Amino acid sequence: MKAEIITIGDEILIGQIIDTNSAWIAEQFNQSGIEIYQITSVHDNHQHILEALKKAEEKVDLVIMTGGLGPTKDDITKYALCDYFNTKLVFHQPTFEHIKTRFTKLNIDVNKLNRDQALVPESCTVLFNKAGTAPGLWFEKKDTYFVSLPGVPFEMKYLVESEILPRMRATGKVNAIYHKTVLTQGLPESMLAMKLEEWEDSLPQNIKLAYLPSPMAVRLRLSATGNNENDLRVLVEAEIEKLQKIIPDYIYGYNSETMTEVIGQMLKNKGKTLAVAESCTGGYISHLITSVPGCSDFYKGSVTAYSNDIKEKIIGVKSSTLIKYGAVSEDVAKEMAIGAMQVLNADFALATTGIAGPGGGTSEKPVGTVWLAVASKNGVTAQKYVFGDNRERNISRSSQTALQMLRRVVLKELQ
Amino acid sequence: MKAEIITIGDEILIGQIIDTNSAWIAEQFNQSGIEIYQITSVHDNHQHILEALKKAEEKVDLVIMTGGLGPTKDDITKYALCDYFNTKLVFHQPTFEHIKTRFTKLNIDVNKLNRDQALVPESCTVLFNKAGTAPGLWFEKKDTYFVSLPGVPFEMKYLVESEILPRMRATGKVNAIYHKTVLTQGLPESMLAMKLEEWEDSLPQNIKLAYLPSPMAVRLRLSATGNNENDLRVLVEAEIEKLQKIIPDYIYGYNSETMTEVIGQMLKNKGKTLAVAESCTGGYISHLITSVPGCSDFYKGSVTAYSNDIKEKIIGVKSSTLIKYGAVSEDVAKEMAIGAMQVLNADFALATTGIAGPGGGTSEKPVGTVWLAVASKNGVTAQKYVFGDNRERNISRSSQTALQMLRRVVLKELQ
Repeated sequence: MKAEIITIGDEILIGQIIDTNSAWIAEQFNQSGIEIYQITSVHDNHQHILEALKKAEEKVDLVIMTGGLGPTKDDITKYALCDYFNTKLVFHQPTFEHIKTRFTKLNIDVNKLNRDQALVPESCTVLFNKAGTAPGLWFEKKDTYFVSLPGVPFEMKYLVESEILPRMRATGKVNAIYHKTVLTQGLPESMLAMKLEEWEDSLPQNIKLAYLPSPMAVRLRLSATGNNENDLRVLVEAEIEKLQKIIPDYIYGYNSETMTEVIGQMLKNKGKTLAVAESCTGGYISHLITSVPGCSDFYKGSVTAYSNDIKEKIIGVKSSTLIKYGAVSEDVAKEMAIGAMQVLNADFALATTGIAGPGGGTSEKPVGTVWLAVASKNGVTAQKYVFGDNRERNISRSSQTALQMLRRVVLKELQ
Repeated sequence: MKAEIITIGDEILIGQIIDTNSAWIAEQFNQSGIEIYQITSVHDNHQHILEALKKAEEKVDLVIMTGGLGPTKDDITKYALCDYFNTKLVFHQPTFEHIKTRFTKLNIDVNKLNRDQALVPESCTVLFNKAGTAPGLWFEKKDTYFVSLPGVPFEMKYLVESEILPRMRATGKVNAIYHKTVLTQGLPESMLAMKLEEWEDSLPQNIKLAYLPSPMAVRLRLSATGNNENDLRVLVEAEIEKLQKIIPDYIYGYNSETMTEVIGQMLKNKGKTLAVAESCTGGYISHLITSVPGCSDFYKGSVTAYSNDIKEKIIGVKSSTLIKYGAVSEDVAKEMAIGAMQVLNADFALATTGIAGPGGGTSEKPVGTVWLAVASKNGVTAQKYVFGDNRERNISRSSQTALQMLRRVVLKELQ
């Protein structure tokens, strides 16, 4: 089964809001075996809405519209739908009763604009919207289903989950689908693709592979379609087993896991703790670690030692080391990692020192130069990197790379 | 001038990533006087890409495509473009030299896939991509411009800013436009709208006002269109002068300024310094501060005191205070702020302690409870907030609110 999402509303087309609704619907549909053929965003414009509906009807089995059902003048979706389905607006008493009840609870009088929300196209099935005032509108035309939903995310989500997905499953036209994403790091996309070429070429016809690169990692998504979800899972897992043998050192997790979750889990399993000393990354590594719920089980904390006196006074970096080698150096990175481990009383510690930019670079140490160090009870290692001249990216890449270094050390020592 | 954005790639249509590229492009174009007619997301499918191009060509003056330019098999945009423009791929030596230079820096060998990134459609103008390996591809066909950009956000942004927008301005077909955004905090949108009603009604016809609310602030964007950018600037600035008289206490900055930039500038101007002690915000405040270039002029650093022993040992919170009031309390927040100011040797200090969730809440202190404190040489103040049950939002709102508190204290003491 194929679907198209049509989002209606100026705010997306002027970049005022990011279209998170479509991503959510696409994910839900995809997991339910409904393929999204296209996502189209159009203005609150009568003619443009009609054109989008017509084009979608030619291609897909289900057209899902969001937005333009509110009470104000710029919300015109219902009028366009009446035109498209050759019907007219009629007053829907149950919807009006629902609106009245909601407003009474909030101690608000129902005005004409609210009353007009109970007007619905005569030929549609009204989908009760428990989460808000604008109901969903369901149409069938020849072999195509059409549904119009409010754009407010939690109202849209309520209607998709309680009405649209059950109705689509009931049609019996939906394929089974199974996805799994393999998270890799340490190999750029092109090198990974070379290593996996043979495996990729031998994949069963009904498994599709996608490379999803991000600055520091490449995700490999396998998607299998067929009749039975269980068979598909077995098929995909068998391919992933092969993959694990080809690139054992580069896989760090699966699906939506993050690097900090993976590291945190390894530490928790062994009852070990972690601390961080950050200079150029300025707190970002600590933020990534503490974004994961339950991190207090293994995370002691961090020091952002932005100025040299903090590096000395709190972390215990030697004044002589700072003078001899400069703050951005192997020795300072190592002393920061060892210091953080001792001062924050942890089993492992990570340290960063570098020049995030745009200022502060020299010919010897250009902007983007960073030293990363990992300390454990078994010693300390440091590594130099030279990233680019963009501050935001230098912070992000330094942080991601430092976490990768940490993961390798933790893996080696705790396995 | 009208444009359509076509995003190419399965990952958007299966909901794996949210299409932030389109929102960013739409905002940039809109601010440059280019109207986005439609946003269309299609699969990495040859036929589908051709159809989308054809439909867009019928409607708009500029078609901007993102995605599908990578080195792997699922990236097919270049082949579709060759088909559409009836041309063939040729080897582009300057692009190859650029790829080689980038790879040499990273100590990686150039393989066949990387080499293939230097293949470009013969009839296009190649747009040099300083930020990555895949160049932008520029086509002209009758009255329509087409441009294909990589989907990696910072590469796409680099090409839009340095190539696409200057080229569109050079066509002479784009209206002059002048935007300025006034950043306010402290008044919810509806109260702000009430205060500004009269001013808003008196705005010149060619100035459009947009309220852009976010969880912690309301941005007011004034957009003037006309023939001459300089005239428009004078017009908008005159209106902003009136606005400054109506809500003097609520404006904290303009355009893309951030709260941390504004605070940093105030501190720098007076030669004062800042330190932070974070518990529930886990390093995020420090990250926000250090995201601003030049912060080392005023920022000493921070301690993420995630565990109680760090609060005691490094920040100097009294053990008795922790026992008597618990870590999430007014007294601990205040002692953290004072401790950070002393230990990190700063003029001002900010502290946070709270329950970010989802675990750790009690009936007395539910998830989302947070104490924020600001210390200066003149004393310390603390404030309690109860946000929601979403960890990510609690971290973000606590951080933003703490910075607002800090701004008010700094403003009062340094003015």
